[in-house]
Amino acid sequence: MSRDARVCVVGGGISGLSAIHRLLNDEHTPLAPEDVLLLEAQDYLGGRIRTDRTSSKIGKSYDLGASWFHDSLTNTVLKQCIKDGTFNVKDDGRFTDKNAKVFHNDEEKAIDLNGLRGYSVISELEKYIEHYYFEDIGMEDMSLQKIVSKYVDEFEDSLTEEQKKYVIPYIRHMESWMGLHWSDISAKYSSVDFEGRDIFNLKGFDFLVKKLLKDVPEERLIMHQQVKRIKVGENYSGRRVAVECASGLKVTCDYLVMTVPQSVLSLPSSHDYGIEWTPSLPSAVETAIQSVHFGKLGKCIFEFDNIWWDVEEDSFEILASANGPDTKQISPSEQHHDNTVPEVFSSHTTVYNLSSNNFTESNKGGALLILTSEPVTQYIESSPHLAWQYYKPALSKLSTPGASVTDPINVITSNWSQNPYIRGSYTALRVRDDPREIYLQLKREVPSSVPSYIRFAGEHTALDGNGCVHGAFCSGQEEASWILQNCK
Amino acid sequence: MSRDARVCVVGGGISGLSAIHRLLNDEHTPLAPEDVLLLEAQDYLGGRIRTDRTSSKIGKSYDLGASWFHDSLTNTVLKQCIKDGTFNVKDDGRFTDKNAKVFHNDEEKAIDLNGLRGYSVISELEKYIEHYYFEDIGMEDMSLQKIVSKYVDEFEDSLTEEQKKYVIPYIRHMESWMGLHWSDISAKYSSVDFEGRDIFNLKGFDFLVKKLLKDVPEERLIMHQQVKRIKVGENYSGRRVAVECASGLKVTCDYLVMTVPQSVLSLPSSHDYGIEWTPSLPSAVETAIQSVHFGKLGKCIFEFDNIWWDVEEDSFEILASANGPDTKQISPSEQHHDNTVPEVFSSHTTVYNLSSNNFTESNKGGALLILTSEPVTQYIESSPHLAWQYYKPALSKLSTPGASVTDPINVITSNWSQNPYIRGSYTALRVRDDPREIYLQLKREVPSSVPSYIRFAGEHTALDGNGCVHGAFCSGQEEASWILQNCK
Repeated sequence: MSRDARVCVVGGGISGLSAIHRLLNDEHTPLAPEDVLLLEAQDYLGGRIRTDRTSSKIGKSYDLGASWFHDSLTNTVLKQCIKDGTFNVKDDGRFTDKNAKVFHNDEEKAIDLNGLRGYSVISELEKYIEHYYFEDIGMEDMSLQKIVSKYVDEFEDSLTEEQKKYVIPYIRHMESWMGLHWSDISAKYSSVDFEGRDIFNLKGFDFLVKKLLKDVPEERLIMHQQVKRIKVGENYSGRRVAVECASGLKVTCDYLVMTVPQSVLSLPSSHDYGIEWTPSLPSAVETAIQSVHFGKLGKCIFEFDNIWWDVEEDSFEILASANGPDTKQISPSEQHHDNTVPEVFSSHTTVYNLSSNNFTESNKGGALLILTSEPVTQYIESSPHLAWQYYKPALSKLSTPGASVTDPINVITSNWSQNPYIRGSYTALRVRDDPREIYLQLKREVPSSVPSYIRFAGEHTALDGNGCVHGAFCSGQEEASWILQNCK
Repeated sequence: MSRDARVCVVGGGISGLSAIHRLLNDEHTPLAPEDVLLLEAQDYLGGRIRTDRTSSKIGKSYDLGASWFHDSLTNTVLKQCIKDGTFNVKDDGRFTDKNAKVFHNDEEKAIDLNGLRGYSVISELEKYIEHYYFEDIGMEDMSLQKIVSKYVDEFEDSLTEEQKKYVIPYIRHMESWMGLHWSDISAKYSSVDFEGRDIFNLKGFDFLVKKLLKDVPEERLIMHQQVKRIKVGENYSGRRVAVECASGLKVTCDYLVMTVPQSVLSLPSSHDYGIEWTPSLPSAVETAIQSVHFGKLGKCIFEFDNIWWDVEEDSFEILASANGPDTKQISPSEQHHDNTVPEVFSSHTTVYNLSSNNFTESNKGGALLILTSEPVTQYIESSPHLAWQYYKPALSKLSTPGASVTDPINVITSNWSQNPYIRGSYTALRVRDDPREIYLQLKREVPSSVPSYIRFAGEHTALDGNGCVHGAFCSGQEEASWILQNCK
């Protein structure tokens, strides 16, 4: 079986969809629907936007992938959605940024982070890390865990024992951004720019997918097509590129927009889910792709038939013991084959209260959303039935006086780490990674021997909005624009 | 009367003292004590470091000028003092950075800023302002008050009515940094970099003055010498510079370190406290000096024989009504001649709890420290006896349940705005000011026709630590170093 088109988009996530949407709907487009094709490996569109509207037993829907508009001051996708009326901040958005109520693995009662003057300590620690690499970006990288120790050693006299125990571990909330354990997080690139409040998307991020699909004929989107091989530089039935799928489908085209995740791009071509390039990608590009990693942020949602936690709170952080055995040492990913739960609960846990009185609530019970990070994500996603056993000790701390912790009536987890087409959550930087090269190479900010008609898009190619919906969306639009300017 | 020296330092504040200290104590100095002279206009040394150890009726001492080590991550003066044992953070310093307890002029009960998701709104507002000028520093400046209105208009839908009323005015805490009313604060330069936690200096900042004076022979410091005229470029008894004082004293020298405050430098030469330069300073330098202003941060300390506020709190912010008459309109500085208190209390008030349980406490009563800004500073400093009448309505909100507000047994205020040699607090940027020129001109980062043996120091010349002790201190050291390298 073979198909032909002027432009082929590989990947039906938000970057691929925004690319094909622009290709067909730009006011000056010379392309007709039959000129473009999109190949999606899986059985749904949206990629890491995935709104689950069916699993809930209490009438809710959940975004198992992206669920916040980040960087709301500068987020052009958000601004566009507000402008065209598809997203209304007051009705469809929620700010979930009260200071988290903080607990600690070793304590039953909440930690008064403000009373401990903790917020300024955390700000100072973040600034310390920034300074450490600011003067000389060439300084040897180290883990977030290690640089935190350095700070504590250096400012020993400015920290109380209580701050060391109950405030410093709060920095591990970064694990819930990156999906990595703090012993793996690059200190050099750990700082997260604040570009405006995050807006929790209450209507489900699939609205954005649906909005794009309205203007893209369904027959241009071919599902279940895992791309196995991309050939470039010879004549393929009059085209410059040939794309071969696992199904046997061959697509010839003149322009390719490659949006598969970095986690797939970085696989060896011999891998079951890897892609073989003929000729091989230049080694500078290969190296750039390998110079970042994929985090494994996951989601675990517990539904309960009653609410036994504080509905005033937006979120909770449960800090790990500093000295206790750590999930890192007793990595559940290494032992999940025998389905045992790690002996001691000691990872950092970020919990969002999906039943806060900030949300419009049914009276049908409540839900807690846990953001999981590596290695817990693999454990939970591979064994959702063990999730409650794993989290119960930590979550029990959240119970309000007089309320009894009840077992959940439903457990819903994401599956990103187990999904062979996704393989994690999004780009995240491990120790000694370098985020600049992949951008420079894939966005051609440096000379490249990859033919110019091979375009790359996706969150991993974005400088602004890296890892975010708007970064992915805009990267797709940019590549579409380039093709529109060059294909006339 | 006349004196002669190789180097003359004008001004005995911390920058002048650090300059003369370095000149005499640098290990390679070619200068003997008789080679240097320092002229101080007032009857004490330290300038805007002024520790009052005598006024308290409850056994305390107060820094009426500088009282925090700012930027503690990068503050080299702090680091040096820790290293040489003159300052011990644990014993001599206090962190006063719990989130302030917030009140509002229109409400009796405290405002729950976190409950209103206020901290992230304030962060977003600050980021909005930063962004506004980041792309194009040439954008027309406006007041902090005006840009806040712009933000509120633009993000109308992302703000609740409560946030607009009770969170947005919190941004006026900046008035207590700058000593200016928010209708005067430059939006363009309103952002304050966080470079580590501020450390309240419990031992009194005069320790730093005393430390320097130990190594400077007293006879090299001439008090009560207000400089009136500086002549440069001819031969003055074999020297290159002649300095004339109001007392009639004439000093000839080869190098001049000019450390008088910007508020004095910027006076016309005809002014009673102005300085006449012969020849005149180049117009580029004159313009640069006029392109910044002096804030009028003041301090007002109330001592009480009992404590009726919450000793758990480090500080309080009492927010002004948005719509009520504002101190700006009924400027007390304009009416203080008849000693009336402004009709309605409506300025922003920052209060530090000098009796917090964070401090080592005598049992002799307690004290509250108010940071005042323009125009209230002039009012309070000129009429300390009216201070309680002015602040009582606001401060009464701080009383804990069951405690009665009592009148103070003592009122101590700073006098900076009334002191003709100081004329305010420190450099602050009003709308359309530009902080770059004064640095470039006075630190000779651009070609200057001022002879190189005329050096400028003081907080107003510092890029890092502008307005701070460490900025002033280091600027004095730098000029001393330059002279040491050039006078051999």
